Amino acid sequence: MRDVSGWAATKPGGPLEPWDFQRRDLLDEDVAVRIDYCGVCSSDISAIRHASDLPLVPGHEMVGEVTAVGDRVTRFAVGDAVAVGNIIDSCGVCPACLAGRENWCREFPTLTYGGLDRRDGNPTRGGYSSEYVLTEKFVHPLPGGLDPAGAAPLMCAGITTYVPLRRWGAGPGRTVGIVGMGGLGHVALKMAHALGAEVVQFTRSADKADEARELGADDVVLSTDERRMAAQAGRFDLILDTAGAPHALEPYLSALAMDGTLCVVGIPEGELSIDPMSLIVGAKNLAGAGSGGTVETREMLAFCAEHGIVAEVELMRQDQVNEALERLARNDVRYRFVLDMAAGRP
Amino acid sequence: MRDVSGWAATKPGGPLEPWDFQRRDLLDEDVAVRIDYCGVCSSDISAIRHASDLPLVPGHEMVGEVTAVGDRVTRFAVGDAVAVGNIIDSCGVCPACLAGRENWCREFPTLTYGGLDRRDGNPTRGGYSSEYVLTEKFVHPLPGGLDPAGAAPLMCAGITTYVPLRRWGAGPGRTVGIVGMGGLGHVALKMAHALGAEVVQFTRSADKADEARELGADDVVLSTDERRMAAQAGRFDLILDTAGAPHALEPYLSALAMDGTLCVVGIPEGELSIDPMSLIVGAKNLAGAGSGGTVETREMLAFCAEHGIVAEVELMRQDQVNEALERLARNDVRYRFVLDMAAGRP
Repeated sequence: MRDVSGWAATKPGGPLEPWDFQRRDLLDEDVAVRIDYCGVCSSDISAIRHASDLPLVPGHEMVGEVTAVGDRVTRFAVGDAVAVGNIIDSCGVCPACLAGRENWCREFPTLTYGGLDRRDGNPTRGGYSSEYVLTEKFVHPLPGGLDPAGAAPLMCAGITTYVPLRRWGAGPGRTVGIVGMGGLGHVALKMAHALGAEVVQFTRSADKADEARELGADDVVLSTDERRMAAQAGRFDLILDTAGAPHALEPYLSALAMDGTLCVVGIPEGELSIDPMSLIVGAKNLAGAGSGGTVETREMLAFCAEHGIVAEVELMRQDQVNEALERLARNDVRYRFVLDMAAGRP
Repeated sequence: MRDVSGWAATKPGGPLEPWDFQRRDLLDEDVAVRIDYCGVCSSDISAIRHASDLPLVPGHEMVGEVTAVGDRVTRFAVGDAVAVGNIIDSCGVCPACLAGRENWCREFPTLTYGGLDRRDGNPTRGGYSSEYVLTEKFVHPLPGGLDPAGAAPLMCAGITTYVPLRRWGAGPGRTVGIVGMGGLGHVALKMAHALGAEVVQFTRSADKADEARELGADDVVLSTDERRMAAQAGRFDLILDTAGAPHALEPYLSALAMDGTLCVVGIPEGELSIDPMSLIVGAKNLAGAGSGGTVETREMLAFCAEHGIVAEVELMRQDQVNEALERLARNDVRYRFVLDMAAGRP
């Protein structure tokens, strides 16, 4: 077994504490990855809050280096720069898996933490740790030229927004709105801009307007400004809603053009409640999206490398993890915390 | 002015009574249509129930014959067989109108009844009447070979279901579910079958199963059978929900395959409430649709003529209109009442 040091919640709600545990010895198709950077995602907060299988080691936006490979590993060698996201395994044989869209695996994909490993039967433990061991299929080469710390959040925030942007046609001649300018939203903004769309950032924070423009927004709309919101009616082909906090969908449905799509990403809390007429009038569409599979992840990483897209990150030492979680919980982050796993080792 | 006899509600909730009124003398681009058949749509019931501008003459599924044309009418001559649906005018200059999708006119299309005529400023009065006068753009040639009584419901039930079936890709290799086997549902079933899709009819009425198969269903699922409903998980590329009565959407969202679309047509009462995870897991879609524009209506009529598709109708004399409305209100119809305007004139 391989000794690993990490950060774990030992009771629901945390805080995280240093915790040593073990990962399996490498199976033939396994890769061991030394974790250099791990992004802090708001789903980490909700996982800690609702943790039942303790201790819980969060973290699913990893960038690092291959330190060992199993006997039958073909795609990686020791020293390779790699990235790992929120899925580390799946059934491999259902239609979704065969299409490389393992996030919709019929048997549910094995999540990077809080799941049960399909190979060794152990609870999966996340990337707030020194090393990860997983089957090579879910390890992704990190393209050259991407800042590794900034690239880490691409593995969740990036893929989750890239997939619906592509699916719903963000590109030249299309007007795309991004709701929320947090970890997901700011990456979506950069991507939509790079895809060639006219991009409008919706935000509740007037002080983010300038930065939104710097990151690629053609226009910024304060969602608290009712008059400006009403003036958006019929403007958008696609609106990507990355705002996790509960909010009314109607203003955004109303902002859609004919045939437009409002796509909810991230996981909003509570039920979505909508007036059916807000969908029917204009033949509109409320869609969902979440994460991506191996094929889309490779495509996303190549796209980001081509366009030089990484997340805007605030780097924290690993022993600042609780501070990062607390600040993220009150939205005090621009725009993603990333733990530097080489610093602050306990 | 032109004398017209019709059936009107003089108080909310009806009943309808014989009522004589007048339509305008023909403007240059107007066509006068003698109404031979008019379908009875459940939206007629709700319009009567909530009528405020009285008297209200319902009816928006008309087939008849041109009896007079204005001086500048080019597409029609006296004697032409024609059909008129639920829109009789629109602004003509907004993007939707320019695209021939006048149902999404920015100024809201002029509805066949219960609206205000853009040309003469009068309340619009519907097709439960002897004659309609409207601008030629919204008059459609009735293709030869279609039974005129059965064709009347194509103008609302038909177009409302045809548009989303086409938009969401009903065709060979796709599995399409139709929820509800009423006026809209049974026409959608025929169309989806003719489009080449595998079609599954969902119904609460076990006694409709045989007829569903006769009309083109490859399979019939009783929506009250929880075990069979659960077994539908992941089966459908598209589900068209034509059931007006309030019902849970989750079982149908769950029945969708990856990327699948649940499209709500007709106008369900109350709010739609859904768990966001039921959209996010599998990247699913909840879409709306309603009616169609002139371009889609022409396409739909040509498609129905090519495939011999008309509604299954129960013909009623015009003086049976209240009986038709009452029976429709309690779902006692297979599958659409059509008023024979040549019979039962008061």
